[in-house]
Amino acid sequence: MASNRRVKLVNIGKLIVESEDMPVPGVNEYLVKISSVGVCGSDVHYFEHGRIGNFVVESPLVLGHEASGVIVGAGPGTDQDRVGHRVAIEPGVPCGRCKQCRTGRYNLCPSVRFLATPPIDGAFSDYIVHNGDFLHDIPDGMSDDQAALCEPLSVGIWANRRADVSPGDRILVTGCGPIGLMVAQVSRARGARVILSDIIPSRLNAARTLGFDELHDAASAPIEESGITADVLMECTGVADVAFRSISVLAPAGRAVLVGMSPEKDQALPVATIQVREIVLTGVFRYANTYPVAIELFERGMIQIDPLVGAKYGLDDVAAALRASREDPACIKPMVVPSL
Amino acid sequence: MASNRRVKLVNIGKLIVESEDMPVPGVNEYLVKISSVGVCGSDVHYFEHGRIGNFVVESPLVLGHEASGVIVGAGPGTDQDRVGHRVAIEPGVPCGRCKQCRTGRYNLCPSVRFLATPPIDGAFSDYIVHNGDFLHDIPDGMSDDQAALCEPLSVGIWANRRADVSPGDRILVTGCGPIGLMVAQVSRARGARVILSDIIPSRLNAARTLGFDELHDAASAPIEESGITADVLMECTGVADVAFRSISVLAPAGRAVLVGMSPEKDQALPVATIQVREIVLTGVFRYANTYPVAIELFERGMIQIDPLVGAKYGLDDVAAALRASREDPACIKPMVVPSL
Amino acid sequence: MASNRRVKLVNIGKLIVESEDMPVPGVNEYLVKISSVGVCGSDVHYFEHGRIGNFVVESPLVLGHEASGVIVGAGPGTDQDRVGHRVAIEPGVPCGRCKQCRTGRYNLCPSVRFLATPPIDGAFSDYIVHNGDFLHDIPDGMSDDQAALCEPLSVGIWANRRADVSPGDRILVTGCGPIGLMVAQVSRARGARVILSDIIPSRLNAARTLGFDELHDAASAPIEESGITADVLMECTGVADVAFRSISVLAPAGRAVLVGMSPEKDQALPVATIQVREIVLTGVFRYANTYPVAIELFERGMIQIDPLVGAKYGLDDVAAALRASREDPACIKPMVVPSL
Amino acid sequence: MASNRRVKLVNIGKLIVESEDMPVPGVNEYLVKISSVGVCGSDVHYFEHGRIGNFVVESPLVLGHEASGVIVGAGPGTDQDRVGHRVAIEPGVPCGRCKQCRTGRYNLCPSVRFLATPPIDGAFSDYIVHNGDFLHDIPDGMSDDQAALCEPLSVGIWANRRADVSPGDRILVTGCGPIGLMVAQVSRARGARVILSDIIPSRLNAARTLGFDELHDAASAPIEESGITADVLMECTGVADVAFRSISVLAPAGRAVLVGMSPEKDQALPVATIQVREIVLTGVFRYANTYPVAIELFERGMIQIDPLVGAKYGLDDVAAALRASREDPACIKPMVVPSL
Repeated sequence: MASNRRVKLVNIGKLIVESEDMPVPGVNEYLVKISSVGVCGSDVHYFEHGRIGNFVVESPLVLGHEASGVIVGAGPGTDQDRVGHRVAIEPGVPCGRCKQCRTGRYNLCPSVRFLATPPIDGAFSDYIVHNGDFLHDIPDGMSDDQAALCEPLSVGIWANRRADVSPGDRILVTGCGPIGLMVAQVSRARGARVILSDIIPSRLNAARTLGFDELHDAASAPIEESGITADVLMECTGVADVAFRSISVLAPAGRAVLVGMSPEKDQALPVATIQVREIVLTGVFRYANTYPVAIELFERGMIQIDPLVGAKYGLDDVAAALRASREDPACIKPMVVPSL
Repeated sequence: MASNRRVKLVNIGKLIVESEDMPVPGVNEYLVKISSVGVCGSDVHYFEHGRIGNFVVESPLVLGHEASGVIVGAGPGTDQDRVGHRVAIEPGVPCGRCKQCRTGRYNLCPSVRFLATPPIDGAFSDYIVHNGDFLHDIPDGMSDDQAALCEPLSVGIWANRRADVSPGDRILVTGCGPIGLMVAQVSRARGARVILSDIIPSRLNAARTLGFDELHDAASAPIEESGITADVLMECTGVADVAFRSISVLAPAGRAVLVGMSPEKDQALPVATIQVREIVLTGVFRYANTYPVAIELFERGMIQIDPLVGAKYGLDDVAAALRASREDPACIKPMVVPSL
Repeated sequence: MASNRRVKLVNIGKLIVESEDMPVPGVNEYLVKISSVGVCGSDVHYFEHGRIGNFVVESPLVLGHEASGVIVGAGPGTDQDRVGHRVAIEPGVPCGRCKQCRTGRYNLCPSVRFLATPPIDGAFSDYIVHNGDFLHDIPDGMSDDQAALCEPLSVGIWANRRADVSPGDRILVTGCGPIGLMVAQVSRARGARVILSDIIPSRLNAARTLGFDELHDAASAPIEESGITADVLMECTGVADVAFRSISVLAPAGRAVLVGMSPEKDQALPVATIQVREIVLTGVFRYANTYPVAIELFERGMIQIDPLVGAKYGLDDVAAALRASREDPACIKPMVVPSL
Repeated sequence: MASNRRVKLVNIGKLIVESEDMPVPGVNEYLVKISSVGVCGSDVHYFEHGRIGNFVVESPLVLGHEASGVIVGAGPGTDQDRVGHRVAIEPGVPCGRCKQCRTGRYNLCPSVRFLATPPIDGAFSDYIVHNGDFLHDIPDGMSDDQAALCEPLSVGIWANRRADVSPGDRILVTGCGPIGLMVAQVSRARGARVILSDIIPSRLNAARTLGFDELHDAASAPIEESGITADVLMECTGVADVAFRSISVLAPAGRAVLVGMSPEKDQALPVATIQVREIVLTGVFRYANTYPVAIELFERGMIQIDPLVGAKYGLDDVAAALRASREDPACIKPMVVPSL
């Protein structure tokens, strides 16, 4: 039997590669050979801190949840014809039965099993098994990296849905990291005007490369002194102060979506402004029903990832991949490719 | 010509009654003899502090904006047949032309002229002139006090609209003052379950008198230790700490409407909770298109005001009326009746 | 082993009662002893015609889908503690996995298994097995009939959701049969004004008994000559001509919900009126996520069924039950009670 | 004083050009020199039939309502600085005071005054006066034709708003006339996939020129036999049979927007399909709050009009312009340019 290398976080900052028996797909599950995995900020955070909020790594954990692969095996009750299909892997598998699932908000399912969220292992490995309903076939022309990055794109799609972005809206995206650049591209695909803000020149350049020309260099002037106003704020930095300041430039009846997670659970917000302008503020927690749309947007050429995708690393170099985006802000999205 | 007594705030805590010439209605305006005026917390605040946020009383100001009356005169371009009609007075007259007005959000009109908001005089007087489109005819069976209290009821209607309250929702109303009790009654009229919370026994009693039996005494246990959960928070205390704690008991996909204005413009909010539960938070600023509904709800007996209405005061006793609710929490809504 | 009597439609107008082995609950399923079953117009239609649209009875079929019962057995993977619980039985069990299920519209699931819809047997029997996620616990004070009638009440809840009924809306309900009376009660529970229309005096009387006083006798004057206008039409007769005429009395921006199914698949509609008034028209197909709300509305006394519930019949008399509503319009909802 | 040529419909098929005194702008009005006017199907219909539905030409009427111009004079209470500005003319001026206006649906205002709708004269003239709130400044780079065609583009924007089109939706646009091509471009700008259908080869070619490659030749196969399915139907032919057939290819939870007006006020619709799929059907009547968005979409290059714009005609040749689109389907949008 072929063996399966898996990269495990065994201690803060400490990864090991172990070879294990091939996993066996259960009912409704498939065996997937991993093609490409994006490194997410949450992976880096687990690597550096061993926890994110209430999620604590208590036993060795495989990281990585932005993944694509090829179906190479099929469990009981599945469709054997899917073997050979290339897929984007939606990392969260909800219960399908609770109130949240039944009302279409399966991202809020309290029983969801989500890759690389303790105690569920992720995709920095040669193979994983996964529920077939959350493996999305991709077209031939779609790259492995695009398929993997359907995950952060899904966050962008979901954030835009929650703000109901449409033509005539002016969107302010704070933070030009991978999420911000995905959010901005989806806003543009929905017909809205987009202004991007960041303090890092290389990230503003990435935005420019993606064709955005309304850019705000937050290092030179705070947003509230920039003259910028917006109908929608897409806060993608996770910096409490940025959220606070940016809400203040929203127009009456504006909307604020807090996408980035801050290390501070509680934050000061300009509540009086929210009230007198009747601003609607919300957050996003993952996404629901986005993968088919993400695949379609890639297929139709509406989303570009070239300026985001950084260096590629094999399974033996995951630690380097995890350090890459921290050490070099120009490396927006390092990718792990097990076959390297 | 008859004279018009008007009660003017000339300094912090200082009111004078002046007799002036009768006002003359302009184009689209009517002359209205005031029947009843509710005392609002904002009136009390101007009386005690001379300002509310950015609104500063810089010259003598007539307070009072929860008013009813009888049309006794008609300006150019109006309908003379309306003379003699009893009316609920919607205090805010928007421009009707700006983006907010054209999109149905006239409460956010930047040019709105709102009674008792500097520099626009209010209704603590024998007569006022007012735009006829914002004078709403009331049925014979409706009392002057009900007509006046269409104003706080409008806040309740608007808050419920913004949270889209419907059967199956569990509503937590924090604060059993006049606004909280209106909000709660509208939630009930929309078919939702309502839990009310306050620290003042007389206010909880008022809620009980209105038929609410799910009450939380916030003086004995903080809301987050009460076991209460809710789908919708209607925050009507304006106390930052109450807002913070109450958001934490909301269910996933919950909604929070911050109705009460706090003296603190900025407040700490549990942002991580808002994010992981995808709570939608907003505020209310007055209301739009609510008066016809308010009148209908009163007419159909769905809203009660007896437990709210406190003592009645003539124009010479407005200062006492303004002090009443502060000094006696059981006096939820003092009324000013010019004819007394 | 106890035996299970089941009433089978073996031919048009021909029922037989057969005793069979007790059914055995599978994974996630429970054995339910049936307490009460409402007779629905669709049961009558299958009985008289052997089909409804594309649904054809091709082998013996047990009818009845408005049912309540008591859990008396539990299959693998279920909660044994539920045995003994009284339940309202939600008759449709969707797949939980398709696009419609994942987006919260599980009533549109193409793989739904729905009681008494060929080839799925219904509840005119002593016992059935059913998926535990679609058995809803009811409180002690709730009657078996109320629990059974959560089904037509669910249609009422769903129709009201689709029209987003709220205070200030004027609702016209055409048809005072069981569905119309449920729809009307839900509209009232949501705070709307309701006008009911029918041609049968006993049905208008049932509406009056339920406390509705705005009634239109369609036998004496067509709706469009009645002076009635409405914001929302709830069409519950299934008569094409009624739908056509009633849409014409809708106000601009009105909504029309076609609840009743007509024998005519295609119907003439006043399209020009729909266009110039921008009326939104839709239909309802069953319901989703309504049972918990139905139970709560019953528990809070907001829905009455006494004027609807007609005679009760044992399993040997199901044919009489099916004929009852046809022969006596005053018998709005005959009930089948297996224990009789 | 300069004179103002106006082209009047004096009888069916009979136009005369009259020179009159310059009109004088009233309160809030401006004098506008007309730059360009698109010929609309409704203009052609009035020209050929003297009426559209209940709107009857009873005295000489100036046609033309898709217009742009330059402000050359200003009435009382206006901003003199606007003189010299180039503007897109929004043809409907609502009352701003009725329920529809106050709720943001001013297109449904019963008192709206709309250019070229009896008895209000239109824009086939050298000058008109118009309410300044409905004259929208355009940027320098925008052409007179683009500004004029903000009108049909507004229909496209409004239709897309009413169907809430977003990425992931598949839109079927039936009819590739000027409205269909505008609707389709807006759907694309909102990120949706678009399929266009027509029977006229030149119109399908126009769609192809605009970059659409999913085209259905309705002359060769009826839509319901084409294998096409859609989430949203945008019916732009006004042919009852096309509406009927196209609704049948909608997916569950689909939406149908009837944009095209049919000469038949009543139409047969597949009501059973609408019910079991819970399709939401509505119509559009003009538009509200669309002009700023239309201007922005043009400015950002998201809407093309070159394949639509046909020959140009002076005021003396309006009859030829009116006949052009009827006689040559390849001439999708003839334009009237008074200065020619």
